[in-house]
Amino acid sequence: MIEFTREKTAEGVSERLFDVAVAGERVPAVIWTPEGARGHRPLVLMGHGGSQHKKIGSLAARARTYARKFGYAVLAIDAPGHGDRISREEAARLAEEVGARVRGEAAVPFTLMKTMTERAQRAVPEWKAALDAVQGLEFVGKHQRIGYWGVSMGTAIGVPFVAAEPRIGCAVFGLAGLRSGNDAFEEAAKAISIPVEFVFQWEDAVAPRESGMGLFNAFGSKEKTMHINPGAHVEIPNFEGASWERFFVRHLGTADGRAA
Amino acid sequence: MIEFTREKTAEGVSERLFDVAVAGERVPAVIWTPEGARGHRPLVLMGHGGSQHKKIGSLAARARTYARKFGYAVLAIDAPGHGDRISREEAARLAEEVGARVRGEAAVPFTLMKTMTERAQRAVPEWKAALDAVQGLEFVGKHQRIGYWGVSMGTAIGVPFVAAEPRIGCAVFGLAGLRSGNDAFEEAAKAISIPVEFVFQWEDAVAPRESGMGLFNAFGSKEKTMHINPGAHVEIPNFEGASWERFFVRHLGTADGRAA
Repeated sequence: MIEFTREKTAEGVSERLFDVAVAGERVPAVIWTPEGARGHRPLVLMGHGGSQHKKIGSLAARARTYARKFGYAVLAIDAPGHGDRISREEAARLAEEVGARVRGEAAVPFTLMKTMTERAQRAVPEWKAALDAVQGLEFVGKHQRIGYWGVSMGTAIGVPFVAAEPRIGCAVFGLAGLRSGNDAFEEAAKAISIPVEFVFQWEDAVAPRESGMGLFNAFGSKEKTMHINPGAHVEIPNFEGASWERFFVRHLGTADGRAA
Repeated sequence: MIEFTREKTAEGVSERLFDVAVAGERVPAVIWTPEGARGHRPLVLMGHGGSQHKKIGSLAARARTYARKFGYAVLAIDAPGHGDRISREEAARLAEEVGARVRGEAAVPFTLMKTMTERAQRAVPEWKAALDAVQGLEFVGKHQRIGYWGVSMGTAIGVPFVAAEPRIGCAVFGLAGLRSGNDAFEEAAKAISIPVEFVFQWEDAVAPRESGMGLFNAFGSKEKTMHINPGAHVEIPNFEGASWERFFVRHLGTADGRAA
């Protein structure tokens, strides 16, 4: 049973915070749903980027839009070593480090692949536990269609998670690539067979072109599409956001009685 | 002044045939508009593929949809050596040749690049003349926004045309690439600065991956997006058609009083 630690409703969308206990740790989670939601509905899991947290502005805004426009439930959790799982000072330091890499001012450290692999290993059971928990909610339900959205670290964690989680029916990934030596990540990508939309920035300081092509090629999905745009890591054009909406509506439909 | 040789209206869309005289040749053209259209409206020029013609099923269906949904005018012409400019026997032979190449059963002939270059050289003034002609129509107009759509040969001709035609404000290209030695085509791509959506098939027998990446990289546009999908030349997924609609509506708007 989920015990909500905070609930608030604004502009037609309810936001509820809760914790999930996994391997002795409390994982902070949030679920957004339309105000007064009753009955089962499609669910989208959103994985935040490196140095961000479960309620980062762009993610929360997208979640609220999906709840309002499509009647979706949207679930997010703090990744290992992120959000409410670290102090404000640690979060600020992390944001500085990641920011410098994304702006091309600092090299990607040699240890990052190992760090990401470890984070993903911890995050996979956490995502599963959070998903188990919300499927028990009357206003989410067990039999709904489920999608995953996550770019950058949301892909580094999302690919192993989606590969290991048969409940996910479609996924948006992006801003990440396949590095030589990362065999576990490649195997996970190959094991994915659901529809994938993969967004990639052509001048990304942290994901070189060939790594992006490599990841796209690795996905085992019959339906997979790669959207390449000019610009840096943080410069995904707005029209890709509109494309994600249509991708999810195409594969998950909308909640009963709602037009897309 | 355009003299229409045939007019018919079905399901809310009028189709009018006419000829344009260019360099002593009559170029067969067609324009689709909403039934009873009055006043200026956005215009999309659609360039058909190799061995096809101006009223090929998929193109005509898309034109009718654009007229009906967005209030657009849509213009198409027979490319040099295509459609009503050749006999039925010649057209059947051409369809067989191109079909074999597209299915990977026949190699792309060494002379094709030269043939395409010559076709494009002839087609550019023909497109310009057809555009001049329809801009004189009260139900199209001179000051509307104009887009171009054309994949495969529609890109081989469209890239030099759009590079040479400042009236075009946005373009969908695809299923074509940059071959070494095709300097004029590369220069044309570099000269294009309008928004471009470029669709590419990852197992295309007539456009290898590296040629597609090369053409995408060559476009001079600040806003350019490449959509890569698995499959052969003729297997563009349906959702790309929906993406083209949104691309044109984003850049051209819709005719007055119509919701997209």
